[in-house]
Amino acid sequence: MLPTSINAIEAYSGANGILKKVKKGSLLIDSSTIDPAVSKELAKEVEKMGAVFMDAPVSGGVGAARSRNLTFMVGGVEDEFAAAQELLGCMGSNVVYCGAVGTGQAAKICNNMLLAISMIGTAEAMNLGIRLGLDPKLLAKILNMSSGRCWSSDTYNPVPGVMDGVPSANNYQGGFGATLMAKDLGLAQDSATNTKSPILLGSLAHQIYRMMCAKGYSKKDFSSVFQFLREEETF
Amino acid sequence: MLPTSINAIEAYSGANGILKKVKKGSLLIDSSTIDPAVSKELAKEVEKMGAVFMDAPVSGGVGAARSRNLTFMVGGVEDEFAAAQELLGCMGSNVVYCGAVGTGQAAKICNNMLLAISMIGTAEAMNLGIRLGLDPKLLAKILNMSSGRCWSSDTYNPVPGVMDGVPSANNYQGGFGATLMAKDLGLAQDSATNTKSPILLGSLAHQIYRMMCAKGYSKKDFSSVFQFLREEETF
Amino acid sequence: MLPTSINAIEAYSGANGILKKVKKGSLLIDSSTIDPAVSKELAKEVEKMGAVFMDAPVSGGVGAARSRNLTFMVGGVEDEFAAAQELLGCMGSNVVYCGAVGTGQAAKICNNMLLAISMIGTAEAMNLGIRLGLDPKLLAKILNMSSGRCWSSDTYNPVPGVMDGVPSANNYQGGFGATLMAKDLGLAQDSATNTKSPILLGSLAHQIYRMMCAKGYSKKDFSSVFQFLREEETF
Amino acid sequence: MLPTSINAIEAYSGANGILKKVKKGSLLIDSSTIDPAVSKELAKEVEKMGAVFMDAPVSGGVGAARSRNLTFMVGGVEDEFAAAQELLGCMGSNVVYCGAVGTGQAAKICNNMLLAISMIGTAEAMNLGIRLGLDPKLLAKILNMSSGRCWSSDTYNPVPGVMDGVPSANNYQGGFGATLMAKDLGLAQDSATNTKSPILLGSLAHQIYRMMCAKGYSKKDFSSVFQFLREEETF
Repeated sequence: MLPTSINAIEAYSGANGILKKVKKGSLLIDSSTIDPAVSKELAKEVEKMGAVFMDAPVSGGVGAARSRNLTFMVGGVEDEFAAAQELLGCMGSNVVYCGAVGTGQAAKICNNMLLAISMIGTAEAMNLGIRLGLDPKLLAKILNMSSGRCWSSDTYNPVPGVMDGVPSANNYQGGFGATLMAKDLGLAQDSATNTKSPILLGSLAHQIYRMMCAKGYSKKDFSSVFQFLREEETF
Repeated sequence: MLPTSINAIEAYSGANGILKKVKKGSLLIDSSTIDPAVSKELAKEVEKMGAVFMDAPVSGGVGAARSRNLTFMVGGVEDEFAAAQELLGCMGSNVVYCGAVGTGQAAKICNNMLLAISMIGTAEAMNLGIRLGLDPKLLAKILNMSSGRCWSSDTYNPVPGVMDGVPSANNYQGGFGATLMAKDLGLAQDSATNTKSPILLGSLAHQIYRMMCAKGYSKKDFSSVFQFLREEETF
Repeated sequence: MLPTSINAIEAYSGANGILKKVKKGSLLIDSSTIDPAVSKELAKEVEKMGAVFMDAPVSGGVGAARSRNLTFMVGGVEDEFAAAQELLGCMGSNVVYCGAVGTGQAAKICNNMLLAISMIGTAEAMNLGIRLGLDPKLLAKILNMSSGRCWSSDTYNPVPGVMDGVPSANNYQGGFGATLMAKDLGLAQDSATNTKSPILLGSLAHQIYRMMCAKGYSKKDFSSVFQFLREEETF
Repeated sequence: MLPTSINAIEAYSGANGILKKVKKGSLLIDSSTIDPAVSKELAKEVEKMGAVFMDAPVSGGVGAARSRNLTFMVGGVEDEFAAAQELLGCMGSNVVYCGAVGTGQAAKICNNMLLAISMIGTAEAMNLGIRLGLDPKLLAKILNMSSGRCWSSDTYNPVPGVMDGVPSANNYQGGFGATLMAKDLGLAQDSATNTKSPILLGSLAHQIYRMMCAKGYSKKDFSSVFQFLREEETF
């Protein structure tokens, strides 16, 4: 599980890389969140060595890892999925087969892009509602029983005081850092450019997290976008 | 229940308007979705006549109306809410007190802005995933068990073939038209400008629905944004 | 010359407003930058009193005012333009007839929206180029001899050190404040919503200035958007 | 002069690529518009062979090529620039030294990103103004004497009927196709992601050209964004 596409390429194709020594018939599972195009490239190289490569990016944080509750999204040859599932099942309660190599990454990237959009949307809606005179807890309750409901509003609300046990209740410490979200949105952006898919909101969400990182929010949980938008005009 | 702020002002303050004849002690409930600033203005005028004004915009479509399952979001003097609830309860299963006059509108506007953002986000994520090789039903399933989950993905999925009984299963007929969504986003935009609240995604969502209306989608359900984004490059 | 639509309405229609006392045949020229729909409304009221109303918003700062170099964009009945021109010519070197009442506002709003977009675009392009290793002065020179050329790049460059005598050379003091730009973009937004015109970049520019105002830039010149985008990631 | 980064890599590093046979001391000039990071990579490989690589993307269309009026933006070792200039000067009247390898690309990409932003901004401002009742020629004249002035408004106006001899006067035929603009914006996007530079408007401009390509505008001149935004709501 490596931080970037470049690291993964180096680990496989570098001077002392896995490809130099891998035995035929080995099953190689990469849980990095990287560009699906890179996963496909690595799979080709691994296949030339007579081994098998699967991409299996992971979802869920430190807590989920401790309690074996991670989610793995797996891409690769379907015949090999059972073997991967056996191993990954030790760490994760959800091991989902997504299709050909690269689709594990694709599923992860699409989910996180939608997550970023919903989170910023929730932050904007909550902030607007508060300025229009609504009580934040009441507004969250209304959204959650209506069509605005989403994971960011009902499970991970970004407004301090609305929920307990989430980063917004703890000064946005812990959780999933804005930097990591910016990175995943960069991957979504690259994949969208490569496939010529329009992502108007996804692309703007990317830029918003990019700005947040440059303005002191890089290590705060990504739900701190509420705080970022919240600051008041002072004139 | 009138279509625009201008219609509501005319109905109250026009030459033959309600304000000319309203009796002292009357309870006036307006279920239009309009600018909360207008609701506040009307409430002041009504109060001068010795009557009471409440804003109570409604959520839910024709089906919900038939089965008395509408949601009413009510703003106004708290003492009068019981009276409003008695009446509105005949049509709606959820009658929620939101606070002072105008907060009913505020709740409705914030919900619909978040809905528009989540719907476009779902459409972008589903489209990107499909282009990256994922099966739409599988991708929807993964999103719905992950942090990308939202009403637009799990209850009203915009991709044909993923769910039954929703507008995307019926060529985007019925449902909540793109024009109506554009109108509600215009209200959100106005309220955000008035309160100096930044709504980056909300504002872009507004422009996207504005474009859709100009390109033949005005009468289709608002989930047709998937189709709008989906069209393929043909070169 | 009043700051907002509300002030202008009060000045004309208020308890002690101009409309109470205006003499028949008077020429009333309003140089406020306000909603063109309000200008049209005021013109109707003034006409009922037998007088004439023209909107004539102004462009150019304190320096231009001192040297009689202001630009006036005038909307109203064409027959009355000569009279307006005679008066306004004492303060401005450019007095442009734009068409019916409200078109002076329209011209001002459209210009300032394009200005805001070009300025943010210049700031983004300069910042990206600098990060890619280009010298700012050289990049500005290249843009100015190419198709990226605009007033913001060749006359009012937002990057400190590129030009003398502009706000970017003086810590963004003086000039046209970010708050005023946010206000004008709010008017553009309202006009676009009323006429159902899509303004994707204009709308996002509005939100960017809105955010800047909330983050300490409200009194800085609007070219400080370069500084706003420039701040470095620190991790 | 090759269309994409992949083509350039193949031409240099492919099985029959330039790198297989290049003689020591050769000067290799690449006029493709590609990712500056790829130019840098190719320069390293070329240097290993004892030769010199320069990136020199070009600006100006068929007309400029015929009349030797192209602009070349050149990146590479400064000592070699005189040699490059001698050759490129036969085709271009402007040969600009931009700095180290890759800065030619950087200058081209930044210019075209600003161009795309200004063009869309001009289209939005002209469309809004027309809907507010302004004559297009008059509005263009006002913008061009004011702070909204840009190359897209004064040299290449996107509104039919405003100028002669530009694509908007010829049904958007000829000129610089929307597909090519989408490609250049994709490069800007990649460079911005790599350098963590926020490009809010640049990124949205990218998505707008992406959508246009999917909706039948791919071969029209990029100024056809006016037509794309212009279509009227019909309800």
